[in-house]
Amino acid sequence: MSGTDLTQMQLPRFSGIPTFMRVPACTDLAQLDIALAGVPFDGGVTARPGARYGPREIRNMSTMTRTTHHVTRFNPFAACRVGDIGDVPFTDLYHLERAHEDIRRFFEPVFAAGKIALSAGGDHSITYPIFQAMAPNEPIALVHIDAHTDTWDSFKGSKFTHGAPFRRAVEAGLLDPKRTIQIGIRGAQNSDEGWRYSIENGMRVVFIEEFEARGPAAIAEEARRVVGDAPVYLSLDVDGLDPVFTPGTGTPEIGGLTTRETLALLRGLDGLRWVGGDVVEVSPPYDPSGNTALVAATLMYEMLCLFAASRFRSA
Amino acid sequence: MSGTDLTQMQLPRFSGIPTFMRVPACTDLAQLDIALAGVPFDGGVTARPGARYGPREIRNMSTMTRTTHHVTRFNPFAACRVGDIGDVPFTDLYHLERAHEDIRRFFEPVFAAGKIALSAGGDHSITYPIFQAMAPNEPIALVHIDAHTDTWDSFKGSKFTHGAPFRRAVEAGLLDPKRTIQIGIRGAQNSDEGWRYSIENGMRVVFIEEFEARGPAAIAEEARRVVGDAPVYLSLDVDGLDPVFTPGTGTPEIGGLTTRETLALLRGLDGLRWVGGDVVEVSPPYDPSGNTALVAATLMYEMLCLFAASRFRSA
Amino acid sequence: MSGTDLTQMQLPRFSGIPTFMRVPACTDLAQLDIALAGVPFDGGVTARPGARYGPREIRNMSTMTRTTHHVTRFNPFAACRVGDIGDVPFTDLYHLERAHEDIRRFFEPVFAAGKIALSAGGDHSITYPIFQAMAPNEPIALVHIDAHTDTWDSFKGSKFTHGAPFRRAVEAGLLDPKRTIQIGIRGAQNSDEGWRYSIENGMRVVFIEEFEARGPAAIAEEARRVVGDAPVYLSLDVDGLDPVFTPGTGTPEIGGLTTRETLALLRGLDGLRWVGGDVVEVSPPYDPSGNTALVAATLMYEMLCLFAASRFRSA
Amino acid sequence: MSGTDLTQMQLPRFSGIPTFMRVPACTDLAQLDIALAGVPFDGGVTARPGARYGPREIRNMSTMTRTTHHVTRFNPFAACRVGDIGDVPFTDLYHLERAHEDIRRFFEPVFAAGKIALSAGGDHSITYPIFQAMAPNEPIALVHIDAHTDTWDSFKGSKFTHGAPFRRAVEAGLLDPKRTIQIGIRGAQNSDEGWRYSIENGMRVVFIEEFEARGPAAIAEEARRVVGDAPVYLSLDVDGLDPVFTPGTGTPEIGGLTTRETLALLRGLDGLRWVGGDVVEVSPPYDPSGNTALVAATLMYEMLCLFAASRFRSA
Amino acid sequence: MSGTDLTQMQLPRFSGIPTFMRVPACTDLAQLDIALAGVPFDGGVTARPGARYGPREIRNMSTMTRTTHHVTRFNPFAACRVGDIGDVPFTDLYHLERAHEDIRRFFEPVFAAGKIALSAGGDHSITYPIFQAMAPNEPIALVHIDAHTDTWDSFKGSKFTHGAPFRRAVEAGLLDPKRTIQIGIRGAQNSDEGWRYSIENGMRVVFIEEFEARGPAAIAEEARRVVGDAPVYLSLDVDGLDPVFTPGTGTPEIGGLTTRETLALLRGLDGLRWVGGDVVEVSPPYDPSGNTALVAATLMYEMLCLFAASRFRSA
Amino acid sequence: MSGTDLTQMQLPRFSGIPTFMRVPACTDLAQLDIALAGVPFDGGVTARPGARYGPREIRNMSTMTRTTHHVTRFNPFAACRVGDIGDVPFTDLYHLERAHEDIRRFFEPVFAAGKIALSAGGDHSITYPIFQAMAPNEPIALVHIDAHTDTWDSFKGSKFTHGAPFRRAVEAGLLDPKRTIQIGIRGAQNSDEGWRYSIENGMRVVFIEEFEARGPAAIAEEARRVVGDAPVYLSLDVDGLDPVFTPGTGTPEIGGLTTRETLALLRGLDGLRWVGGDVVEVSPPYDPSGNTALVAATLMYEMLCLFAASRFRSA
Repeated sequence: MSGTDLTQMQLPRFSGIPTFMRVPACTDLAQLDIALAGVPFDGGVTARPGARYGPREIRNMSTMTRTTHHVTRFNPFAACRVGDIGDVPFTDLYHLERAHEDIRRFFEPVFAAGKIALSAGGDHSITYPIFQAMAPNEPIALVHIDAHTDTWDSFKGSKFTHGAPFRRAVEAGLLDPKRTIQIGIRGAQNSDEGWRYSIENGMRVVFIEEFEARGPAAIAEEARRVVGDAPVYLSLDVDGLDPVFTPGTGTPEIGGLTTRETLALLRGLDGLRWVGGDVVEVSPPYDPSGNTALVAATLMYEMLCLFAASRFRSA
Repeated sequence: MSGTDLTQMQLPRFSGIPTFMRVPACTDLAQLDIALAGVPFDGGVTARPGARYGPREIRNMSTMTRTTHHVTRFNPFAACRVGDIGDVPFTDLYHLERAHEDIRRFFEPVFAAGKIALSAGGDHSITYPIFQAMAPNEPIALVHIDAHTDTWDSFKGSKFTHGAPFRRAVEAGLLDPKRTIQIGIRGAQNSDEGWRYSIENGMRVVFIEEFEARGPAAIAEEARRVVGDAPVYLSLDVDGLDPVFTPGTGTPEIGGLTTRETLALLRGLDGLRWVGGDVVEVSPPYDPSGNTALVAATLMYEMLCLFAASRFRSA
Repeated sequence: MSGTDLTQMQLPRFSGIPTFMRVPACTDLAQLDIALAGVPFDGGVTARPGARYGPREIRNMSTMTRTTHHVTRFNPFAACRVGDIGDVPFTDLYHLERAHEDIRRFFEPVFAAGKIALSAGGDHSITYPIFQAMAPNEPIALVHIDAHTDTWDSFKGSKFTHGAPFRRAVEAGLLDPKRTIQIGIRGAQNSDEGWRYSIENGMRVVFIEEFEARGPAAIAEEARRVVGDAPVYLSLDVDGLDPVFTPGTGTPEIGGLTTRETLALLRGLDGLRWVGGDVVEVSPPYDPSGNTALVAATLMYEMLCLFAASRFRSA
Repeated sequence: MSGTDLTQMQLPRFSGIPTFMRVPACTDLAQLDIALAGVPFDGGVTARPGARYGPREIRNMSTMTRTTHHVTRFNPFAACRVGDIGDVPFTDLYHLERAHEDIRRFFEPVFAAGKIALSAGGDHSITYPIFQAMAPNEPIALVHIDAHTDTWDSFKGSKFTHGAPFRRAVEAGLLDPKRTIQIGIRGAQNSDEGWRYSIENGMRVVFIEEFEARGPAAIAEEARRVVGDAPVYLSLDVDGLDPVFTPGTGTPEIGGLTTRETLALLRGLDGLRWVGGDVVEVSPPYDPSGNTALVAATLMYEMLCLFAASRFRSA
Repeated sequence: MSGTDLTQMQLPRFSGIPTFMRVPACTDLAQLDIALAGVPFDGGVTARPGARYGPREIRNMSTMTRTTHHVTRFNPFAACRVGDIGDVPFTDLYHLERAHEDIRRFFEPVFAAGKIALSAGGDHSITYPIFQAMAPNEPIALVHIDAHTDTWDSFKGSKFTHGAPFRRAVEAGLLDPKRTIQIGIRGAQNSDEGWRYSIENGMRVVFIEEFEARGPAAIAEEARRVVGDAPVYLSLDVDGLDPVFTPGTGTPEIGGLTTRETLALLRGLDGLRWVGGDVVEVSPPYDPSGNTALVAATLMYEMLCLFAASRFRSA
Repeated sequence: MSGTDLTQMQLPRFSGIPTFMRVPACTDLAQLDIALAGVPFDGGVTARPGARYGPREIRNMSTMTRTTHHVTRFNPFAACRVGDIGDVPFTDLYHLERAHEDIRRFFEPVFAAGKIALSAGGDHSITYPIFQAMAPNEPIALVHIDAHTDTWDSFKGSKFTHGAPFRRAVEAGLLDPKRTIQIGIRGAQNSDEGWRYSIENGMRVVFIEEFEARGPAAIAEEARRVVGDAPVYLSLDVDGLDPVFTPGTGTPEIGGLTTRETLALLRGLDGLRWVGGDVVEVSPPYDPSGNTALVAATLMYEMLCLFAASRFRSA
């Protein structure tokens, strides 16, 4: 299999029209193995907006990305064909559920074609329509890094906000709570509703205190145990990290993961049956230094390595 | 009539819990003549969000406001009772039209009690439900300062975005287009639809080139002529000003009004039959220096002077 | 005992006039068990000013705070009545000692009524007049988190700067140095005067190197041992944390505590006989991302949990 | 002639991979009438760098651009085919003259094919190799908006810095100084060398004081007189504007043109024989609010209207 | 007379240890004709602090300054000897009046030696001790550019705040109110006390509306008439300008002078009997773009030209 | 031996013309033992520029530095004479190799006089000409803290960029690769060329994963073992730290050293035969909070302590 055309990646980093990681823009799915996509939507937030500009800034900062991983020496762009399929084209921005329909429709052909989709949000509400687009035969597994369980029910008129995607996915039979692990959970809440939903439905909830006590390697092991050999999705909310690393986000909670811990955690997940993933809640208006977008772009690269290696690494 | 309790305004400006202009927080309408209100909503924007934080930052910056106008020596707080009635309590944030219902319900008792409401947005879509709340017996007049006519029809699933409020208000019989003047209009558009709607329906559209050529005094005269003795509302979108003065806004257009021109224009509108007004589209995440909020707070004070003088100035 | 009215806390976080943690504004001490207060004063700094705007920004950011602690599931607002009593009203801003008199006078009735006061500074010089207001029968204990011992003598014309409060408190018989622990101390000094004063007077000085070597749990144990069962005050200077977490401060020193360490340290102090506390040295002009205020607001919530639990937790 | 494909311009402004004004990316010159290009190079600056990131941020901000001009109702994208031909691919970044060779080579085929090139810098040194690429049969005319004449000789080892392009172009017989007008000149210099060179060689130097006294309409007339019917290039350094409008630039000088004056000046230049132009010296690291890039993007659109109308406006 | 050693000014602007305008640091008054000085003090402000960092940032930005004026071709550094005498060394920072003593003592030998002092503040309270240091035989004249008259009486414990210096100077017989002109005055106040004091004592108060109506040339004429041939001081508060030009200041008021108006006004004051001047109220923490410091540095250069020309211009 | 004149360091930190750590400016090498120097040059970067302003901002922030180390109680300023010898005066800024000649020429007399030079960059390309200036009799040792090995060969026209200094130094016989340790290496690359060069030539490459696993004390031991008793240089690129601590840099890579780890590592290097060092890649335009400059200034102080102690600590 031939790899990605990386002509553009040889340019100086300040040069060129920025696609994700400077891979080719490509809407012909037949040319791709892994599709990078943007979901510029923040209509599901409960506090600070701005994540609609997440894909643009992640693309900009991902021009700092290069090819060969310094630990594994793996080059995902050589292993398979990676392209930027652009952003979800929204037809409705003003009614949360209808915007979700736009997202679902955009991703359906990607998954139908058997491609891995790696998306940049947007707020976390986008993950539910992505799950709908996957339409798995049976509920899939999930590794979820976040400060919040996102299994709350309803807020100010909708059951589909960024606090609810995984509760909706369980209810719709798309997600298997018993094969779900949620890592980095913390922060006061007005009730214990979401935490309780996750726990009572069998999700493995790793509060930050446990994560810190046991360390990323042990938690990665725990994730592997929970997920098993099921097809698995990786959803990474940048507020899972401490806001000092990712200030540009909608609902920051102090006391989160460091970048080194997050990298170690992700690298511990090698070899699972990845079907897709997303990095969400990057809000550039709250990210004057650009570090949030840099972190998100780098974590997307790490996830790309995971996904590419799981399916395309030569034996 | 006794005036406003200004104990808090005697504190150093960095002190105290910030209400608008440090007037008393007060939800008993009977205690007030003029109600200052916040509408923390940006679900109607087409580009950059963030105006939901407008009321908070305008309140913060309005702690710089004092009482006595340096040109007129008028003190609106002595002339009548001014209070901060707080923010619209939203029950639905995720469906534009339902959020507008929340806004309408909040303002209905204010206008029903005969009070003048001076609001801080929020995006410009909020003005339509405020007009609904006024429910005037016959269409009222409007002075509208903005880069855009906001008489466009529909965008991405809704006819109620921040590009449409005045078209909807005309259609609903709430606004008299022949007693409407729109000042500061400029910036390329993807068609001439909105400009044409305004002009064909009889609104007086003052593009920025005419404004500059004739100056604020002449345009204020023009506004007085258009409005006549009708009850009149004043809607000020901060993007009517040049973005160098008000960078913190959703759809900036270069080449707008200066603050001195805006002040001169407002002062030229003294003596009209004001029923209310708003300052909208302050988006704090795009306002790192805080100047947008400072401008908005100062213009709210000028509008307060206009409104108070029109009804409460001693003969 | 009935708890706090939290109507306002149910609003979206961007909504409402911000009190600390959105508790009711309340100046009737009889209605309260714990009083939250602001001390907007930075006239005691030796380097960068701005902490006079600390209370305002902490109030703003504390709108992100919620009720139920994720580790303990304790809800301090249900356990007791918490209110925001506003800011110290200053009558003199231009002579350090007279401004301190204003602070002392404001807090005297709070402590006289037996209330716990939790204050947001302001620079660290404010703690001395708060100690004067407490006027304890005998010297009290102190847990002090900071980069500096604040036991220096005199600087540029005053013995009451933010480098001196605990030296003055010892001299005045308000603070028991032998029941004092200072945690996080670091950074070059022009002499060893302050360090020596603390050590020679019996304070337990935990330099950052010891803190790092032993960890927050061990140091919390040490603090419990030092404090014993004495009435104890908790003073937290945000420069005790690394400036990467709290850049908005007057005298940043690199190499400080992380947020996770600070949270662990505070949680290790449960059950002491708390009489009050403060979070100081938040300087918003140096905090463009707002993270310093977010950290301070969250730490105030943790301290509120500590204080409420120590006196109002049901058996 | 069919116009530009504007599918992408119908998307919400926060959506899509940003080309200049969201026109198609296109390297096939046969498909284009006007070529938009980026020159990400700042190796010729004398003070603050960063203009290498100019093209990227102008592309980002130009997503705010729309099609139809509000004064003329002209739509340049309908009148002709406009495409983004990408950035100059540099082979040498470390020797000023060799980098200029890269620029020259990139533009040669564009001009050889008879296309109009509208470029975004980069620092002002890029204009000299663009002139070399034009290789006109005889010296061409120039309208030059700037705080500086850029006709200084040599600085710190090179005669090709951003202070020298128009001196070099005159010497090389590419530019006719008698058909050159320089507008907005101001700011102290260490000698009068550059001013004198311009004046002694017959350039029409309009210092800002003359500009202000006579106004943009009169100066536009003056420019038309100087340029006559010669082929003419338009070079706009954003430091010609006051730094309050364009803070993100390398050598800001207070007291410059306003955006309204600049727009009026440009619109007064309609109907000249335009062969190309550039907007230079946008330095994003010094542009936290993004207003410099917004101004540059809008001025590029105005220049595009000028250029398209001069050659493709239907009679 | 030999001029200033400008070796350092030939360096690239980003190079070298920054003195004001890169003149030699020099504490030997005998070597100087004009002394540039810093007064890093903000203990007299009523709202936002930070001006203590004004001298440092003005020095930094003044590295952009060059020698030869573009209108007059005058080079002040050639005409006389200019040096940076450093900052006032404070012995008391915590009691306003004692800090003023430090300022007075620092400037006394400068004026006693017959030198012209041009100072960078610091807040506006510093001008009173500078007047004390001048100790003129009879009250001198004043050109004062500001949003505020600074003739208010007392605030929060002191009569020497930055709102009071010119009232104190009149009372002390140092300033002749009848030879005083105050330009740019505007903004609401809690009473008309200060305005009334100025007017009733014979100062010529030019509110911004008059300034705008008549223009800088006419107002400069008015200033010349008021001042006459008296020795005259020039005090420029950067809040006299619109905060869009000078956001980094303590008490911004919208609607102020532009930089072009300020430059025209200053240039209209050529030939008066200048004895000194200051630029005050630059607060770097509120100046993220640095434009305030750039404006202040450039205006200092213009004032230096005025002062040098008045005494050292060859006939 | 008498120590440094620290009069200026007794001033308030916001006062005075800033030299490095407020030591005397001094170009007479005979008066010094350790020379602090600035190298304001960023012509060797491959991505984001701005490091030319590094020396200025490090000088500014180093005004926060004091004298006595809190762990060792060592005062380097008392132990020896420390002065600021200013910045390299560049004669060529536009050809990388010629600028390097300027750097070499500036440092040659410093090393020839047997002084220790501690420099602030500038980009990392400056270290090669500093090595040339040292002109050691035999290849020296190196402790190198960085995200990148900087042993890549050639980029876009030069073999002397900031990615190449240590490869060039080895080739020139100035650096002994077998006595070189590189610490903190990480981040994807487009090939393994640089990593391989370092390893194949015998450098000890400590990737961040090894650093984290073993800790700073063990790695310091490893460094001591590698260096042995050879003369040794310390080169610290601030991108060795995580960009959350040092965002203001040209090529940030997430997942780096913390400040506490860096301090521990440096302190573990006490007693080596230090001949000089540098702190490079501080880019102030990307450092809005100033933390990068604060970190760099503090690390310079730590390095100064190391260097002074190694040669001037009394037995």
